[in-house]
Amino acid sequence: MTVVLLPEEPLFAAPFRLNGNGEMTGLEWVRESGLLTTPIGLTNTHSVGVVRDALVRVAVAREDAPDWSLPVVAETWDGFLSDINGFHVRDEHVFAAVEASSAVVVEEGNVGGGTGMICHGCKGGIGTASPVAEDGHTVGVLVQANHGRRSRLAVDGVPVGAELGGERIPLPGAPEGAGSIIVVVATDAPLLPHQCERLARRAALGIGRTGGVGEDSSGDLLLAFATGNRGVGGDEPTTVSLLPGPRMNALFVAAVEATEAAILNALLAAETMTGHKGRTAHALDPESLVEVMKRYGRA
Amino acid sequence: MTVVLLPEEPLFAAPFRLNGNGEMTGLEWVRESGLLTTPIGLTNTHSVGVVRDALVRVAVAREDAPDWSLPVVAETWDGFLSDINGFHVRDEHVFAAVEASSAVVVEEGNVGGGTGMICHGCKGGIGTASPVAEDGHTVGVLVQANHGRRSRLAVDGVPVGAELGGERIPLPGAPEGAGSIIVVVATDAPLLPHQCERLARRAALGIGRTGGVGEDSSGDLLLAFATGNRGVGGDEPTTVSLLPGPRMNALFVAAVEATEAAILNALLAAETMTGHKGRTAHALDPESLVEVMKRYGRA
Amino acid sequence: MTVVLLPEEPLFAAPFRLNGNGEMTGLEWVRESGLLTTPIGLTNTHSVGVVRDALVRVAVAREDAPDWSLPVVAETWDGFLSDINGFHVRDEHVFAAVEASSAVVVEEGNVGGGTGMICHGCKGGIGTASPVAEDGHTVGVLVQANHGRRSRLAVDGVPVGAELGGERIPLPGAPEGAGSIIVVVATDAPLLPHQCERLARRAALGIGRTGGVGEDSSGDLLLAFATGNRGVGGDEPTTVSLLPGPRMNALFVAAVEATEAAILNALLAAETMTGHKGRTAHALDPESLVEVMKRYGRA
Amino acid sequence: MTVVLLPEEPLFAAPFRLNGNGEMTGLEWVRESGLLTTPIGLTNTHSVGVVRDALVRVAVAREDAPDWSLPVVAETWDGFLSDINGFHVRDEHVFAAVEASSAVVVEEGNVGGGTGMICHGCKGGIGTASPVAEDGHTVGVLVQANHGRRSRLAVDGVPVGAELGGERIPLPGAPEGAGSIIVVVATDAPLLPHQCERLARRAALGIGRTGGVGEDSSGDLLLAFATGNRGVGGDEPTTVSLLPGPRMNALFVAAVEATEAAILNALLAAETMTGHKGRTAHALDPESLVEVMKRYGRA
Repeated sequence: MTVVLLPEEPLFAAPFRLNGNGEMTGLEWVRESGLLTTPIGLTNTHSVGVVRDALVRVAVAREDAPDWSLPVVAETWDGFLSDINGFHVRDEHVFAAVEASSAVVVEEGNVGGGTGMICHGCKGGIGTASPVAEDGHTVGVLVQANHGRRSRLAVDGVPVGAELGGERIPLPGAPEGAGSIIVVVATDAPLLPHQCERLARRAALGIGRTGGVGEDSSGDLLLAFATGNRGVGGDEPTTVSLLPGPRMNALFVAAVEATEAAILNALLAAETMTGHKGRTAHALDPESLVEVMKRYGRA
Repeated sequence: MTVVLLPEEPLFAAPFRLNGNGEMTGLEWVRESGLLTTPIGLTNTHSVGVVRDALVRVAVAREDAPDWSLPVVAETWDGFLSDINGFHVRDEHVFAAVEASSAVVVEEGNVGGGTGMICHGCKGGIGTASPVAEDGHTVGVLVQANHGRRSRLAVDGVPVGAELGGERIPLPGAPEGAGSIIVVVATDAPLLPHQCERLARRAALGIGRTGGVGEDSSGDLLLAFATGNRGVGGDEPTTVSLLPGPRMNALFVAAVEATEAAILNALLAAETMTGHKGRTAHALDPESLVEVMKRYGRA
Repeated sequence: MTVVLLPEEPLFAAPFRLNGNGEMTGLEWVRESGLLTTPIGLTNTHSVGVVRDALVRVAVAREDAPDWSLPVVAETWDGFLSDINGFHVRDEHVFAAVEASSAVVVEEGNVGGGTGMICHGCKGGIGTASPVAEDGHTVGVLVQANHGRRSRLAVDGVPVGAELGGERIPLPGAPEGAGSIIVVVATDAPLLPHQCERLARRAALGIGRTGGVGEDSSGDLLLAFATGNRGVGGDEPTTVSLLPGPRMNALFVAAVEATEAAILNALLAAETMTGHKGRTAHALDPESLVEVMKRYGRA
Repeated sequence: MTVVLLPEEPLFAAPFRLNGNGEMTGLEWVRESGLLTTPIGLTNTHSVGVVRDALVRVAVAREDAPDWSLPVVAETWDGFLSDINGFHVRDEHVFAAVEASSAVVVEEGNVGGGTGMICHGCKGGIGTASPVAEDGHTVGVLVQANHGRRSRLAVDGVPVGAELGGERIPLPGAPEGAGSIIVVVATDAPLLPHQCERLARRAALGIGRTGGVGEDSSGDLLLAFATGNRGVGGDEPTTVSLLPGPRMNALFVAAVEATEAAILNALLAAETMTGHKGRTAHALDPESLVEVMKRYGRA
């Protein structure tokens, strides 16, 4: 599993659901309060609970322990490549992940929660991208990409998936279009909670642009948070910055593009993996990608 | 029709739907932007359009006319007492109402949009209440009350409606539980948009406490706005105040109680009216109310 | 913890949030699919994860095991009376609760998830009510009631809490208005998912009528499901019954009243308890209640 | 203005908001009841009211007139090419449009509500597409396309807008990225209301795939309705068909692709227009499009 560690304070945040065949705990409080008050755990479908309670344990072990904790833990299904019903994730993995996380930056590919992922019929996993928007703010996106059909995969608008049939990159044999994608969007812009929701909604367009359609068995859940307003979780009145709505356009474009880029990075960082029951998911190799891109007029 | 005039600038706002058999235009932009950018018009069901476009005319006639306007206009159905299909509301009524409105304060009872209202089987109309919350902020509620069954009317928990049968205050003969209630909640607390939504949601509990259940044919729509943060509609980044969530409890209580009080005030301010086709809706007379309240141990 | 066992098939369902300072897992899939596909677990705030994963274990151990499971587990905070950070709930408690549940019917009071509850400053817990609506359908409500201030407790509109000061029934010393209430609404009417949401929204009014205001630190989450349409989770097209909207009014009234009754039953079934650190929450004794009710003109 | 006429009976329906800087009246009742009970009017921003009330007049003039009507009227802003503050739309235009509409089929391009539209910096308007989904159901999409920046326009993934600079197809001079898109999705599949909402949400991905990002001043509102279940607006219990969730995948793909196609068809059907104040919006000419498509490896 993977832990996205936050600054040690609540931040303004909001979720968006493109499709709901998935779990992201803690959302009712995020929606109501506009605050993200815990780290974000990413794991497989059947380990959400253990990761969730372990993050509670981490919280209540702190010196300034809160009376209660409602952690945000999301999942995607890794039952094709992993022994998901073996319930192998344990408290100590969470504690180690929290220990190891020193920043929002994480490794990509077959790591942590991304280990057993399959994305558009290739090996998937964790991917990130952090473009600087036209207005100077950064929009960082982290995905745990485990969704999509091969035939619909598009890269920068090029129908890569349709071109890369099963002869070129064998299909894993898992049901097409099952799985899910979790998208975490972070920005240093000083957004208010309702603006975080707007940002998360735009990021969903990036899933669509790479070929996702939010298929019935896919849980495509997005969460956006903003680090540009601090001190927002305290007990005393304070002031926060307000970015006018029209200024959000640059962030909207960056959120769409960062989500596209993060999905591609997840694919490119992932490595071919043979897992549970000898099943294999093949990586999207850069040579094949470049070849198709060239055929469609891209550098 | 009634116009609730705002300060001449956008304010943070959010709606809540207890039941949706009604219209409140402009809500998609309020939800998205977190801003209320126009006056609020209250009228009957079949005159929403004319009031809406007339408010656009008012906006674009201003010196600092916006390129476009998406006015908020809500309605309740007055077809029992009024000739609703006569389409009697005209632009000039709206212009006059805007001219006449000099503040959020409005008359109560059978006035403006409240003229043909029936509430819990008594004559309804416009009602207001503006309690000061425990924390010193004011929560003002304006209702256009046209909802509810006689048998469920409760005042401060006393089953007034059940006690006041048709012999004591004749029923108007309109279908029971049809109609709607529009609730506008204003506060001088410096709320953010998501906090306005929280406040509107609590106000709905006040409808429930007086006996409303959001019956199928009732459009119970609420809109909350906050005047405590100003300058929020501009094009330049600015700062706004943040009231911590726990500080909202006093406002929540005030919103519930103000909604209860505004409904009661609408009933008490309304006067018996004979309208369209000679139909009559009788007012809740204070003597009957006091008598029942006493019977249930209230002063 | 408590398990509400469902018929062995998915049912139409939908949630509603009156306030979100709480957790109910699985909601994104309920919202998206309109289906409740798992039992409902009720536990304390810090044990949501273990109960959730244990319910997954139960699901995948079945002969017709699904590929994945997204259980619905809700919580309220019992940290005043219980050692919540001791993480005492374990898999075996969940397995035993599932084993013991043979129906939607459950015990009331200080049982299961209701053990450490405090409601309106009295001992709270599990409460139920199952009125038959005017149209012949039943609306069953189960609450895990751990919310509210003493001063706002109302029973049938009578200000019981204000009358029963701390001298009469000592206050437990826990922060007033903290805690949460979970409301599960079941009906045998053949509702569609969007109608379940309507029903859940009305049940929230019952919380308001007994004195709840959805205080900031309260997680007031409601979930409604309908048993009147069966076979709705299959892979083949089928037909379902449609209850016209106007026919829902009787259910709306029943949902409001059942929620009020279930909260009262939780209070009356609960017994005075001394828990963690010797803290005591006193039960609302029937004698005191009857005395106050009489003073306000009720039998 | 344009009227999309429905079968003479309510249908299951649901809206989705990609961005909210626009108006679509009637949505609260669509959301609550799951029913679309009126025709759909499409007009300019400042004529929503007149169209809305005229549709009420049409409804109440029918022999089986309802007691009230809450029409669905959506808009996009045509103030660059048209004299929007001249309020030129009148009742008689609406009556004529209703008269002329004999089916869901409508003309494309600079017609009705589409007259003054600008889309991705080219002349926009009304566009439609009605693909047959893989499962045999049809998904018809109608757009009133008035949104997007030139630089982001993509056709089948090809960066057409970036290639077609202002030298090739002059820009109109209107603010880039202002305007809105209204998307009406119809299917003959027997969807329930919550499934209509799922379909509308997928259609939004089609906006994203052609280059829309839901910019701040864009009102990107979608409404989906299903004709596959009839008799759903009556007063008596009835049965309706249920399409299992997994069967919706084909519809999801069709909704995404139909939205893309409808936007392209709006562009291709539109003709260069010189309007208000001599301003001109140039059409996307097929030759330019084909040329760019070829350069990127498309037929």
